[in-house]
Amino acid sequence: MATGALSPANIAAPLRAVLRRQRNVTVLMGEVTDFDLDKREVIAGGERLAYDTLIVAAGARHHYFGHPEWEKDAPGLKTIEDATTMRRRVLSAFEQAELEHDPARRQALLTFIVVGGGPTGVELAGAIGEMAHYTLRGNFRRINPATAKVLLLEAGERILPTYPEKLSARAVRDLSRLGVTVLTGTAVTGVDPGDVRVTRSGNDEVIAAHTVLWGAGVAASPLAALLAAKSGAQTDRAGRILTQPDCTLPGHPEVFVLGDMAAFLHQTGKPLPGVAQVAMQMGNYAADMIKARVTGRAPPGPFRYKDPGSMATIGRASAVVDMGWTTMTGYLGWLAWLFIHLVYLIQFQNRVMVLFQWGWNYVTRGRAARLITTDWKPPEPPCPDGR
Amino acid sequence: MATGALSPANIAAPLRAVLRRQRNVTVLMGEVTDFDLDKREVIAGGERLAYDTLIVAAGARHHYFGHPEWEKDAPGLKTIEDATTMRRRVLSAFEQAELEHDPARRQALLTFIVVGGGPTGVELAGAIGEMAHYTLRGNFRRINPATAKVLLLEAGERILPTYPEKLSARAVRDLSRLGVTVLTGTAVTGVDPGDVRVTRSGNDEVIAAHTVLWGAGVAASPLAALLAAKSGAQTDRAGRILTQPDCTLPGHPEVFVLGDMAAFLHQTGKPLPGVAQVAMQMGNYAADMIKARVTGRAPPGPFRYKDPGSMATIGRASAVVDMGWTTMTGYLGWLAWLFIHLVYLIQFQNRVMVLFQWGWNYVTRGRAARLITTDWKPPEPPCPDGR
Repeated sequence: MATGALSPANIAAPLRAVLRRQRNVTVLMGEVTDFDLDKREVIAGGERLAYDTLIVAAGARHHYFGHPEWEKDAPGLKTIEDATTMRRRVLSAFEQAELEHDPARRQALLTFIVVGGGPTGVELAGAIGEMAHYTLRGNFRRINPATAKVLLLEAGERILPTYPEKLSARAVRDLSRLGVTVLTGTAVTGVDPGDVRVTRSGNDEVIAAHTVLWGAGVAASPLAALLAAKSGAQTDRAGRILTQPDCTLPGHPEVFVLGDMAAFLHQTGKPLPGVAQVAMQMGNYAADMIKARVTGRAPPGPFRYKDPGSMATIGRASAVVDMGWTTMTGYLGWLAWLFIHLVYLIQFQNRVMVLFQWGWNYVTRGRAARLITTDWKPPEPPCPDGR
Repeated sequence: MATGALSPANIAAPLRAVLRRQRNVTVLMGEVTDFDLDKREVIAGGERLAYDTLIVAAGARHHYFGHPEWEKDAPGLKTIEDATTMRRRVLSAFEQAELEHDPARRQALLTFIVVGGGPTGVELAGAIGEMAHYTLRGNFRRINPATAKVLLLEAGERILPTYPEKLSARAVRDLSRLGVTVLTGTAVTGVDPGDVRVTRSGNDEVIAAHTVLWGAGVAASPLAALLAAKSGAQTDRAGRILTQPDCTLPGHPEVFVLGDMAAFLHQTGKPLPGVAQVAMQMGNYAADMIKARVTGRAPPGPFRYKDPGSMATIGRASAVVDMGWTTMTGYLGWLAWLFIHLVYLIQFQNRVMVLFQWGWNYVTRGRAARLITTDWKPPEPPCPDGR
């Protein structure tokens, strides 16, 4: 969605509509401001809501390694709004380049930096490369979008570090075919409007780039810190709560902490990654646990994650898939990626719409959802008092 | 789209992609700040663009009858962003009502006022009524969305005043079946957060309503005033330019003013309405005129509008259609409305997607694009200096 291949409504479903037949489910939209663990109440939207069992699954935001001021120049991708922001920035950069006469400024407008070589960064860089080389071909008169530079910066030794090495190498090859340059061992030391400072092999460099997108670092929702302060639970570096083996808050078996907010050690000793599969399996586990408690049956044992593998799509007809027992790349990997994502999209109607949209995109290399939805105005100057 | 039946990308197409094969068309996205009619140059995005023929078609915005301060509390519907804003306000009002315990405030949250009984107001009021009675049924636990009050305010004697009287009466009947109350002879005298002041048969009343949507009044783009100041052309009450019979600026046969910006007198003596059909026919006319001038052929005569009729949809399977020689209502009118709108949607792909989405909505009475895309935060307080 961030690069215009799909629309927001294609991939998200209104929670209320999904749950409308569960008459014992009430959906309330409001901000949780406090927990009263002793009284077993959540304070949300100014109201005290009593609970027998509480499930906290407020997810995570991006993390800028102690530099929250980078966020305005390097937006991350976690929510639908983030994706709309990215779409607007990327498409606006091409628009502004078409208007720009100064060659250096034009090149900066056509330089896209993606920070972080995990699956998010790889997918973003691939999508921008594909857009520049195929989708926008012939759309401009003064610039050639294919001259856009897309740089994928990774501080570590290789991109997709949690995948087998040969998949990392394959991803670099597939990305370079889309005009993406992968720079490993490259750490970001500063983000300013118009340029990014990096350290590479001990040298400091400045790269002029109008558009910087953040695909690195994740920090748990502030509700994790609040819960930890109330319960004495420990948090890890990313602010996630170290839960019990049954996904509950230490000392509070009636409070489950699930998904990206939880630091859960896999049976292999590594913490589970912040991906949808982990959150979905934890959700099922908590439901089983609650059902067992309510009905008086024996509760299930500790939570065990069944890793179904991981995958990242790089571009049209290209993806890397790690199933543990086997790997897939290229066209086959892409078909697997497509299939899995369709299966998990939440509404039947969305599946048909997305399948149609993807089929259309595949044939035309187009991205219909290329809307720049914002008024074309310079941003308001900040308030005099710095707000 | 304003009420979640369709997504932005379903109904809008990126101009660049539509025009990509016209190699002699350059699309530039920037704000026009001035015209130099003597030198034949447009100043846009800081650049001077020379022309032989200039077509200005910058459309119109809503008009608040001298009360621009009403806009923030009563948004209008002209752009994709306007529609997103309306969608958010309407859906958020139901969300807040579900959280509200005070009966009076809850009723105000469930009161929706649509100002203006033209086609836009009628379609909006009908869509909100249908949403409250059908789409949201069973989605809430504390409120019954069908208790929502939808009021359509019209200052004149009847809604759809440009339609035959029997169609106005039919629209009132169809709207009331969707729970919409039509109040004619009701002029808005004030809009504040939380209530609307009106005058009805000489009496002042205050209606408590959280959501007010503006479907009245239209004012031409400020570029019309700029062009008028430069050329000495006259403007009408709505700020539209009184053009020559060939749609050009008086004294400047090389400058065409088309669409909602132009006040063009129909052969019957009435000014043409600000609808898509007028703009499209004017566009074709200007193209014929330019072709004739370039090729040296005889130019076409003055512009004549062929009125294909007008139509407004009221809800699922209900619309009023005035073709001049005949009228249609109810299911038949709705089918005609559907067909015409599909024909004019600009991309083939959009037609398929919209048809599928509409078919789905028809069967399920659902609105999949019911996304509240905004961060759930209270608005920033204004700057201390009032900006």
